[in-house]
Amino acid sequence: MKKIWQKNSTQNMNSLIEDYTVWIDYLLDMELISYDIIWSKAHVKMLNKIWILTDSEKNLLLQWLDEIQELVKKWDFKILKQEEDCHTAIESYLTEKYPSIWTKVHTWRSRNDQILVTTRLFTMDKVSKIIESIEILINSFEKKIKEIWGIKMPWYTHMQKAMPSSVWMWLWSIQDSLKDDLLLVKTALEINNQNPLWSVAWFWENVFWLDKQFTCQELWFKKVQSNPMYASYSRWKFEHIILQSLSQIMMDLWKFASDMVLFWTKEFDYFTLPDEFKTGSSVMPQKKNWDVMELVRWNSNLFLGYEYQVKEIFKNLMSGYNRDFQLTKEPYLKWIKLTENTINICNLVVNNLWVNKSKLEFACSKELYATEQAYKLVKTWTSFRDAYKIVGEKYL
Amino acid sequence: MKKIWQKNSTQNMNSLIEDYTVWIDYLLDMELISYDIIWSKAHVKMLNKIWILTDSEKNLLLQWLDEIQELVKKWDFKILKQEEDCHTAIESYLTEKYPSIWTKVHTWRSRNDQILVTTRLFTMDKVSKIIESIEILINSFEKKIKEIWGIKMPWYTHMQKAMPSSVWMWLWSIQDSLKDDLLLVKTALEINNQNPLWSVAWFWENVFWLDKQFTCQELWFKKVQSNPMYASYSRWKFEHIILQSLSQIMMDLWKFASDMVLFWTKEFDYFTLPDEFKTGSSVMPQKKNWDVMELVRWNSNLFLGYEYQVKEIFKNLMSGYNRDFQLTKEPYLKWIKLTENTINICNLVVNNLWVNKSKLEFACSKELYATEQAYKLVKTWTSFRDAYKIVGEKYL
Amino acid sequence: MKKIWQKNSTQNMNSLIEDYTVWIDYLLDMELISYDIIWSKAHVKMLNKIWILTDSEKNLLLQWLDEIQELVKKWDFKILKQEEDCHTAIESYLTEKYPSIWTKVHTWRSRNDQILVTTRLFTMDKVSKIIESIEILINSFEKKIKEIWGIKMPWYTHMQKAMPSSVWMWLWSIQDSLKDDLLLVKTALEINNQNPLWSVAWFWENVFWLDKQFTCQELWFKKVQSNPMYASYSRWKFEHIILQSLSQIMMDLWKFASDMVLFWTKEFDYFTLPDEFKTGSSVMPQKKNWDVMELVRWNSNLFLGYEYQVKEIFKNLMSGYNRDFQLTKEPYLKWIKLTENTINICNLVVNNLWVNKSKLEFACSKELYATEQAYKLVKTWTSFRDAYKIVGEKYL
Amino acid sequence: MKKIWQKNSTQNMNSLIEDYTVWIDYLLDMELISYDIIWSKAHVKMLNKIWILTDSEKNLLLQWLDEIQELVKKWDFKILKQEEDCHTAIESYLTEKYPSIWTKVHTWRSRNDQILVTTRLFTMDKVSKIIESIEILINSFEKKIKEIWGIKMPWYTHMQKAMPSSVWMWLWSIQDSLKDDLLLVKTALEINNQNPLWSVAWFWENVFWLDKQFTCQELWFKKVQSNPMYASYSRWKFEHIILQSLSQIMMDLWKFASDMVLFWTKEFDYFTLPDEFKTGSSVMPQKKNWDVMELVRWNSNLFLGYEYQVKEIFKNLMSGYNRDFQLTKEPYLKWIKLTENTINICNLVVNNLWVNKSKLEFACSKELYATEQAYKLVKTWTSFRDAYKIVGEKYL
Repeated sequence: MKKIWQKNSTQNMNSLIEDYTVWIDYLLDMELISYDIIWSKAHVKMLNKIWILTDSEKNLLLQWLDEIQELVKKWDFKILKQEEDCHTAIESYLTEKYPSIWTKVHTWRSRNDQILVTTRLFTMDKVSKIIESIEILINSFEKKIKEIWGIKMPWYTHMQKAMPSSVWMWLWSIQDSLKDDLLLVKTALEINNQNPLWSVAWFWENVFWLDKQFTCQELWFKKVQSNPMYASYSRWKFEHIILQSLSQIMMDLWKFASDMVLFWTKEFDYFTLPDEFKTGSSVMPQKKNWDVMELVRWNSNLFLGYEYQVKEIFKNLMSGYNRDFQLTKEPYLKWIKLTENTINICNLVVNNLWVNKSKLEFACSKELYATEQAYKLVKTWTSFRDAYKIVGEKYL
Repeated sequence: MKKIWQKNSTQNMNSLIEDYTVWIDYLLDMELISYDIIWSKAHVKMLNKIWILTDSEKNLLLQWLDEIQELVKKWDFKILKQEEDCHTAIESYLTEKYPSIWTKVHTWRSRNDQILVTTRLFTMDKVSKIIESIEILINSFEKKIKEIWGIKMPWYTHMQKAMPSSVWMWLWSIQDSLKDDLLLVKTALEINNQNPLWSVAWFWENVFWLDKQFTCQELWFKKVQSNPMYASYSRWKFEHIILQSLSQIMMDLWKFASDMVLFWTKEFDYFTLPDEFKTGSSVMPQKKNWDVMELVRWNSNLFLGYEYQVKEIFKNLMSGYNRDFQLTKEPYLKWIKLTENTINICNLVVNNLWVNKSKLEFACSKELYATEQAYKLVKTWTSFRDAYKIVGEKYL
Repeated sequence: MKKIWQKNSTQNMNSLIEDYTVWIDYLLDMELISYDIIWSKAHVKMLNKIWILTDSEKNLLLQWLDEIQELVKKWDFKILKQEEDCHTAIESYLTEKYPSIWTKVHTWRSRNDQILVTTRLFTMDKVSKIIESIEILINSFEKKIKEIWGIKMPWYTHMQKAMPSSVWMWLWSIQDSLKDDLLLVKTALEINNQNPLWSVAWFWENVFWLDKQFTCQELWFKKVQSNPMYASYSRWKFEHIILQSLSQIMMDLWKFASDMVLFWTKEFDYFTLPDEFKTGSSVMPQKKNWDVMELVRWNSNLFLGYEYQVKEIFKNLMSGYNRDFQLTKEPYLKWIKLTENTINICNLVVNNLWVNKSKLEFACSKELYATEQAYKLVKTWTSFRDAYKIVGEKYL
Repeated sequence: MKKIWQKNSTQNMNSLIEDYTVWIDYLLDMELISYDIIWSKAHVKMLNKIWILTDSEKNLLLQWLDEIQELVKKWDFKILKQEEDCHTAIESYLTEKYPSIWTKVHTWRSRNDQILVTTRLFTMDKVSKIIESIEILINSFEKKIKEIWGIKMPWYTHMQKAMPSSVWMWLWSIQDSLKDDLLLVKTALEINNQNPLWSVAWFWENVFWLDKQFTCQELWFKKVQSNPMYASYSRWKFEHIILQSLSQIMMDLWKFASDMVLFWTKEFDYFTLPDEFKTGSSVMPQKKNWDVMELVRWNSNLFLGYEYQVKEIFKNLMSGYNRDFQLTKEPYLKWIKLTENTINICNLVVNNLWVNKSKLEFACSKELYATEQAYKLVKTWTSFRDAYKIVGEKYL
């Protein structure tokens, strides 16, 4: 199979160069191919509407695209390394069927369009699911808060016990943070909800007319993204915006995990998890470890490393399309998956969290109430500064 | 003057330690002190409402706080190094006036509350101004687009000329990007719009009653932030969210600046700026440089470095208050200022941008129209793939 | 197969948790398994020396380990997902052979030791090869410099032509930079050259005696790393130090690639590469792109993202072993590979670089010599400042 | 005072642009001015050697430069904002004295040279001092290790008690890490030790002859850096290499600080510091905080943010001089200072560290010895795997 951009079959690339440029796109694209098929069908319908394809051509193409979709679902469709990506794999499959029909389908769209629309649809789908997962997690916090209502816990400043607080206040603080994050994620998704289809075609609008609104409705996009330069640049930009918003989630869960790892040390001993969350040591017979929270903590780093990879490319690039845009695919797909997994793992942890009531109450020792003592003096008309001094003298 | 937290005047810190811990907060806080005064007045009114302060005490305090505000406006108020921050400086000033009144004012608020509310008000004010600046910049792009309407310009892929485009499409792409950013900045500001006042007091709500809604209205906050643990954590989190949203602006302007630096090389020579934007060389008599765009480009890096400093602290911290939160002040204040300056500089550049029409049109050479040629063949019912090959043969 | 740390076969992990914790280590470890076998043989010999293993047990074990090495070479050895890593896979294989012998081999070593020594050997091997590749690249620059000797080229400041220079000076500047990097990489490798074997065993040195020097010599390590806490921490630290040094290489190559992409735009047109380095466009028939340099540029970002992932973990961790250490495996293996590939690709590019002499000389236009004119005046005893002004007036 | 690069006094910059471009260089340069004077004297001597300056001119200039040095020492010399930097301030001062002599001094050097040499000398001086501070810190660890010899302490894996260890092993692990860092810092300093003086002059070597070796010896540089393009690029690169090496120190100290903050929580309570290291709370009368270790931890972040700012600029830049190079000054000067301060603070902490022996020994509870029990079984010829199981059953 020739590459889409090859002019004749005798032209060949240096194979070392080819390996370096193809990378692992052909593997990653298995996650994306379904979305390409979905909008290719919309594109075919539109080409029929504007007389590029006859009705029977349209019907054949829709049928064949459904056929590939079926194969993909059953993991019976493969993207070959020399095909580079899912777009070429589809083309390769359909060209064999009936070349003269397929060749018309690439009218008005570039490979840049193809990946742009595919990624947008992928994002709409996956991030909507992530939003659902977050809502489930928020509910799990709610349920757990009710369950452990009334159990006291020290509040720390500078990692030193400071004031009396409670387990539910700690859980509620994480839940509140996730709620604020949701607003960010939804805003990011709203920005992503723009149809870049045929942005490149813009350059020849004087040549042909396209029904952009039609595909916009067909694919449930909120609006058309008309500027082709911005469409190209926004491939990177929208990925980065989605990522920024999800990073807030990851940081909240890092915080939860980091607290957990600390709170279940023997020295604190506030919480624990069932045995099925444990791993052991290859040397020390007595050890039981809860690796899972360490991994949540670490995956936040991993995530921020992928964010770095995506974010930084803007610094290299002049306006227009640059090959670098293409390379965000790996980190982008990975952190979408990572985020979803991490939310689900945390949900499992919240649901199974066991609170060591006696230890927590024992930890709420007398000195936590020093400020309350001062305020009781305030109630008897001592000024706060004086009350502070009076109580403070006991703790010199 | 003793520090707020000192129990007796004989306790002293190691002076090397003191220098290391105070840092330059006392200088930075000159930017914040006005906001502290604003909400201290609301706090005083509330304390009067709940009978902690008498009417005459309230009136005296409001008058004194206005007095400090006046001094601040005339740069006649100084925060001393040993006072550490603006909160202590105000306290120090008022304690001299009438100690027995002032000592009541610290009722229900901790230094943590003080900086939290102060920063929120600072952010509401500054970021609202930044939003205005962005809107002005968007309008400047609009005006310039109308002015240079119709001037062609090549569109680049892989930094190679690719298709015919136009100057206004380039400017419009940046403008569109700024518009999407605005939505992000406004969302970030909405999240910031929560009143954390007296979050610490929560721990003794059984002791006293506070009218949180009153101060919320007084200070124009949209809602009360009730969870004291989240309030504490959100100091960092909200700063980071604001920063993330502004980073999108900075990256757009980086892109604009980076394109500009390239486009006014002698080799491209598409744009220029008036002489008053130029610097020279200390060695080469012929040189004229437009440092300003290099600085915009670089300041985006500077900005992202400050973002890094703010973002990363979450990794160190257990729930509760940690000293580290306090250290975001310098990067936070700096990048708020940096963003505003950079937007204003870019506005100046857009307004003064001069377009080298003849160079741009000369640059739109014949090969840019190869795709259009192919599409003309498509119109005569050649399939696109065949048309591509036919035209492509001329460019082997 | 049970995991090394499992106490009985009825204990089971939640499968979602298991998936989340195992990650893709079992795939990555195919790169590491050979190194594990190498030092396991040294360990077996040592155990024989201190009477834990008999001569015949030793011989059998060495033979079996060679057997696995053979299978690995032919890609006939597989690490199963449930085995987690290469250490368990080897154990699993040998336990079947003769359980009672194998069980003795884990004496004095923990899984932590195993991965530590394995990674050190992997690093010594791979980074030595990278050093060779850099030396080859330095030579290629040398050769190319001789080949294009004498061809002029403008030197730029602020991206504006500034003074007359030459192609060889540009190439030489990159070569010089690579030479300084070599010193860093060699220092990093020297630090890595410490044998952490049996660091954990340290805790029971009162129980048994180990011949650390013997394995040190056997595995060509320069010295023993005695402190077990540092050994554990240095897993991360040494990986990071290696990475920091290699990042200098990647940044030099980024710079080379970035210059190249600019210099072969039509507007500059200073250099080109043979057709076998080119890709095309799926839409524009006329396009020829040199993606390869864009990829080098981008891979520098990718690399720095992996560096970020490795670097940042230190922030999460208390002293001792933390699960997070284990997660650097993926980024570490990837960037070692990425660095080697990128150096080789650049070597290919340097060797095939074609210099457009006429364009370069045309670009060295008159104004580049303004400073030289000023210096000629200096030679006639005009002060430099005056000479600068006299010549500068021609360029107002 | 006109700027060095101004051609006539009527040319003016837009004042908004001027503010944006000058930044705070004029303040930062107070740290650098002494080094400029040092090498300006060497430059003057060389100009005399090659007949540009007469003996009497040379003597006058050396005397005047010493005069400025004296003023700088007494803080009586000021760099004005409109002078931009220290080089111009010196020029401005000397031009008033005897313009016709001074104007000759700028022969063969550009402002780029000036800052390059100045920064190299600044780095040699400051980093040498940092190396001394590290050596002092290493000795303090040594002393403390001897002092607390024999006190047990648990070793942690996954933040859970794992095996018996000791306080000195923990301190020794940090000390060992610092020793490895020293090798990196010294290598970085060796790379920095190259004289870039008159690199720009290279372009006119055909015009004049310069005695580079002379100034090299005069300023104690190890070798001449001949390639002017590399000299220009290495301004950034050497700063970054120095920074990378110092970041290792900062990360070690972060780890020390982070452990300390954890170990002196009430829950662990292993260590403490004298009262003079403490701060208090403005609300809670009982609180005593050790902010200083939180600050060390945080300053590591601050440091890495400055590293980010310096590192990232390479991505923006084509070969040659770019304005962006100039902007590393602020982060570079700041982190040099920050590193020195942080090392000194840690030294103070190590010297004053008080070890809570009874708590530490109580913490070494029975389960820490489970592995030792297993090894005792190994000594009676049980295989390790079986011994592990036997002992493990007690901890199910």
